[in-house]
Amino acid sequence: MSTSSRPRMARYAWGVLVVTVLAIAAGYGWVAWSKGGPGDGLYSRLWQPDKVFGYWHPVRFYGYEGPMSGRFEGPQCVECHSALTPGVVADWRASRHATPKDGKTVYCDSCHGNDHAKLRMPDKTVCGGCHATQHAQFQDERRFGFPSHALATERAVDAPHFVDKPKAEVTACLQCHSVASKCDSCHTRHLFSAAEARRPEACITCHSGPPHPDDETFFASAHGKRYLAEGDKWDWSKPLAKGNYKAPTCAYCHMSGGKHQVADKTIWKFGLQEVNPLTSGNQVRRTQWVAMCSDCHDAEWSRQQLAGLDAERKRAWPLLYAAERELKGLRSDGLLHPTADERPPYPLDKPGALFARERIGYFEGQSSAFYNVSPIERDYFEMWYFDNLGAYKGAAHGAPDAVARGHEKMNTALENIKQKAQTLRQQDKPPAAAPWWAEGEYTGHNKEHN
Amino acid sequence: MSTSSRPRMARYAWGVLVVTVLAIAAGYGWVAWSKGGPGDGLYSRLWQPDKVFGYWHPVRFYGYEGPMSGRFEGPQCVECHSALTPGVVADWRASRHATPKDGKTVYCDSCHGNDHAKLRMPDKTVCGGCHATQHAQFQDERRFGFPSHALATERAVDAPHFVDKPKAEVTACLQCHSVASKCDSCHTRHLFSAAEARRPEACITCHSGPPHPDDETFFASAHGKRYLAEGDKWDWSKPLAKGNYKAPTCAYCHMSGGKHQVADKTIWKFGLQEVNPLTSGNQVRRTQWVAMCSDCHDAEWSRQQLAGLDAERKRAWPLLYAAERELKGLRSDGLLHPTADERPPYPLDKPGALFARERIGYFEGQSSAFYNVSPIERDYFEMWYFDNLGAYKGAAHGAPDAVARGHEKMNTALENIKQKAQTLRQQDKPPAAAPWWAEGEYTGHNKEHN
Amino acid sequence: MSTSSRPRMARYAWGVLVVTVLAIAAGYGWVAWSKGGPGDGLYSRLWQPDKVFGYWHPVRFYGYEGPMSGRFEGPQCVECHSALTPGVVADWRASRHATPKDGKTVYCDSCHGNDHAKLRMPDKTVCGGCHATQHAQFQDERRFGFPSHALATERAVDAPHFVDKPKAEVTACLQCHSVASKCDSCHTRHLFSAAEARRPEACITCHSGPPHPDDETFFASAHGKRYLAEGDKWDWSKPLAKGNYKAPTCAYCHMSGGKHQVADKTIWKFGLQEVNPLTSGNQVRRTQWVAMCSDCHDAEWSRQQLAGLDAERKRAWPLLYAAERELKGLRSDGLLHPTADERPPYPLDKPGALFARERIGYFEGQSSAFYNVSPIERDYFEMWYFDNLGAYKGAAHGAPDAVARGHEKMNTALENIKQKAQTLRQQDKPPAAAPWWAEGEYTGHNKEHN
Repeated sequence: MSTSSRPRMARYAWGVLVVTVLAIAAGYGWVAWSKGGPGDGLYSRLWQPDKVFGYWHPVRFYGYEGPMSGRFEGPQCVECHSALTPGVVADWRASRHATPKDGKTVYCDSCHGNDHAKLRMPDKTVCGGCHATQHAQFQDERRFGFPSHALATERAVDAPHFVDKPKAEVTACLQCHSVASKCDSCHTRHLFSAAEARRPEACITCHSGPPHPDDETFFASAHGKRYLAEGDKWDWSKPLAKGNYKAPTCAYCHMSGGKHQVADKTIWKFGLQEVNPLTSGNQVRRTQWVAMCSDCHDAEWSRQQLAGLDAERKRAWPLLYAAERELKGLRSDGLLHPTADERPPYPLDKPGALFARERIGYFEGQSSAFYNVSPIERDYFEMWYFDNLGAYKGAAHGAPDAVARGHEKMNTALENIKQKAQTLRQQDKPPAAAPWWAEGEYTGHNKEHN
Repeated sequence: MSTSSRPRMARYAWGVLVVTVLAIAAGYGWVAWSKGGPGDGLYSRLWQPDKVFGYWHPVRFYGYEGPMSGRFEGPQCVECHSALTPGVVADWRASRHATPKDGKTVYCDSCHGNDHAKLRMPDKTVCGGCHATQHAQFQDERRFGFPSHALATERAVDAPHFVDKPKAEVTACLQCHSVASKCDSCHTRHLFSAAEARRPEACITCHSGPPHPDDETFFASAHGKRYLAEGDKWDWSKPLAKGNYKAPTCAYCHMSGGKHQVADKTIWKFGLQEVNPLTSGNQVRRTQWVAMCSDCHDAEWSRQQLAGLDAERKRAWPLLYAAERELKGLRSDGLLHPTADERPPYPLDKPGALFARERIGYFEGQSSAFYNVSPIERDYFEMWYFDNLGAYKGAAHGAPDAVARGHEKMNTALENIKQKAQTLRQQDKPPAAAPWWAEGEYTGHNKEHN
Repeated sequence: MSTSSRPRMARYAWGVLVVTVLAIAAGYGWVAWSKGGPGDGLYSRLWQPDKVFGYWHPVRFYGYEGPMSGRFEGPQCVECHSALTPGVVADWRASRHATPKDGKTVYCDSCHGNDHAKLRMPDKTVCGGCHATQHAQFQDERRFGFPSHALATERAVDAPHFVDKPKAEVTACLQCHSVASKCDSCHTRHLFSAAEARRPEACITCHSGPPHPDDETFFASAHGKRYLAEGDKWDWSKPLAKGNYKAPTCAYCHMSGGKHQVADKTIWKFGLQEVNPLTSGNQVRRTQWVAMCSDCHDAEWSRQQLAGLDAERKRAWPLLYAAERELKGLRSDGLLHPTADERPPYPLDKPGALFARERIGYFEGQSSAFYNVSPIERDYFEMWYFDNLGAYKGAAHGAPDAVARGHEKMNTALENIKQKAQTLRQQDKPPAAAPWWAEGEYTGHNKEHN
């Protein structure tokens, strides 16, 4: 290298640095701008919140619009609301907030503020003001990525289909995903009892139905059956610890000792993707898992149960990959319609835009596979999202019938996919894209204002 | 007009009047004749009751056929039946009938009569003899039309498919639809407790499963979960009124204050058809609905929940209409088989009769769509009857997962219908009616004696 | 016959006798040899047990591999395990074993042995050492054949598909089918309470989901709803006898008086095959059935309920036979693929073996229809195994919605089968076997080592 080239390199390096810094700044700026709309998240400029969202994400959306004004002390709140909303007051009276050990009653205004015209709807940070440990544990779960409670809202609103699908549909999603923002998803207001949240009912409002039949698989297990038969007689004021419960509930295993963190238990990534179960991290979790089961069971017994879960997973993935290969083959042979560019663009894009992010297909993204896909893609999606996850939950929660049924359905789905692929390949004339993929009654809703 | 034409007109008017009166009389006569058969309702001459129907519609069908005779006073009944059917007697002893406040014990013979050879099986009018308010409320619900409890039996037996389908199938329908005739559908005999009927279990023997997953959606809601976790500890002797219950059950919202009327609450016609939610009648109901929720919740919160239900409905109908348009298009192009006249006639008709009421298709009548329809029609029927109604119930009862799942299924169904329609339109030779539509193993049962 | 032929005949008879004796001996020998492998049952030489099987079939598979050794008396076991597995000890303390009426405590070592290095996992014969009546009743059920609890394991492992399907799948089956070997399927260890086993939860871990929705249909019935609403308040220590319970549970009807035998109640063979309900044996059972219902209900009422079950069955079979006829017709016309010899052979056989037991189709065997069948065969299988059995259970358990839904699904399935058959018959070129039937991702697993 000649010495004369040095200054040129230095200038070049400076140029790269400047461009990089500008690009990063522009990126941050674009994200900040994106989040500055009336909605929330990356696409906040493309949707409007419904009023009900104020209760699900209060810091962002709640504003009191009622007729009351004036400043009130806690006892005054209680006096009026005993007549207005007696259930709320009755729950509060039964709570630790009303009869605290230290005598310092936590009245309504502690959380809602005492200016009725500017009434506050409390979110997790308000609760976290006193319950700092639980709040910190909850927040800390973000490091596991999604799925985790702490990232649930973000994940929902940052998905392109949140603005792409009609809001009436995604609103149903947001109702559960709002768990990231507030504590009353699990601790019914205004009782906020730990005892209540230890019972499985606290979880299963959200954790039921495909693709997350935690409800169904727990109650179908020997654990669940014992809970059903005698749970009403257990002392739920006891901590979630060895010897206190005759059978575990959701919280016993997933929030052991009351730790407000769920995601750190997973070995198999909830069945969502194939992982190496033998990483050093997973080895630690496997030991913890067996130790947990050993609160009640023999350690060897516990290890064998976990081996059963491993076996279920090892069996599931080849089936899913076999189906995926079939679809990829069809796609590369031009037999899969609608293709990506036969689908309507996201409402974020103009149809002919330069960088139109076209709607992606089944294997590049799970969410899009809910809609605007061909029948064979949907077969694969339901196989992966419902049958596979159902079998996984069955294996994890001790419900053998769910395992057998899930695998039987996966086998059926694989056969159907192969059969349909064969039919597509045997057709005399190649299939054409239907005009209704790109626009029509369903996809027309994409143009709805969200 | 010339004056000479008057007498002719008068004669003509007389003729019209006479023919009209005769036609009305003939109509009444025909209906009366139709109802005069061994069965019940408009087609009573075409079916025979099974013996079990005597328990479901006792006034019409019950006759004691047992070996006992003789006249007995209440205490004598109790004496024998303590050994014969101890459960029945134990329930009666625990009831208000056995220990009334006024000391006038209501013994077995008060309801069943005291002549054992002519034992009476009580229907609602027997109960109404004392419980006049509840009976009057129940009967008064007929003004809302169907769906309503009071018209449930009538609706079942007056549907042509009641005699058209094998009786073994429609018998299952009648078991729940017998609620119109008797009180023990909700108040288990012989306890007849109000406390029991306030619990959701009283309703869900009938109100579960598609197309009316009231059971599943209530228990999946935050209300249902709270009931499951602590309902056993609530005081069910309290009236269904503000402040008495920590979470509502079916009866709390649908029979507020114990009023024996359910249909007057509906705004959206149970999701069965699109209605204008803003009629003056609906405006009144919306106010009542919000007031009901406000027993526990903030009024604004309640309004937003109702707005969520509105949004769900507004989203559902365009999907259903899009599917229906597809089928109507196929039908007018002659691509939908079986056509109405390729289906077998009702058993009420002779195949070649002059006014044969041919079996109707999917959009002229819901019931017929259960059977003898082509696959694409069935897709529509299940989309409308199961997916749509499931989503509606989810929205109405606070079960977001059921809303998300119902809409996802509607989207899937619409895609399937469009796909099948495209296939039908692309076929080289037009589809022909299959011979088995008009007769065969299934439809052959139409000729069975019901 | 000439007299000279006699000696020849005698020699001939001797020959037949010798060959027969040798054949029988060889048969016995072959079965004994088959059962001598590492697995269990007729195919024991073709699979290896997972370790968890030791808990499900302990006599055959359990061997203690833990680190403990030494001999311990019962109180010593309790002392250590109070810290190690406190739940187990708490359950034992609450059991009759810990506080027997005769004062002779049944300690851990009574069942597990007192040599920790050779720890025994108790099976039913260990329990039967004391509970001889229950054990004898349980074993005696074998005379009814399968389905019966006593033959459940044998039936599972002696089916060819137990080694033909991947073990991860059939393991789920074995978990419930292990009921034949041990008592803690119903009596949770280490409480072993009769009270617990009288509740429906004891049964429904296994008896739920298609094809045996006993769970769903019981809880959907008036009996189940009453149990749900007030069962927690019943005295479960009472025997299963007239007057002791306000509504029956599984055990009340199926194990009346605590008799450990379930199969002797069936009239309709659990809906699995058409039987003559009027054999003398069935007549006796019908009388017993009505007598059982008459513990609570009027006898005539009970008879009518049974008549309703009869009507449901009589309606179901013609539908199933109609579907079967359709498939048999296709098969004899060469339109059903894969044919038996287009399927892969069982792993028991070599592909080109002389007596290859080819995989059988749908109507010669139910189990094989789970996999490697064409779509129309699967339709039939699901119609028979899920829809039909679901309707039967609904009728038997008093869940009318399940009856209506099951029959509606059977009607749908029959229509689908007819439609698909018509399509197959109308194709210009006959369908060919897909290469993936004989080998591929799914069937390739047959070559896995089980």
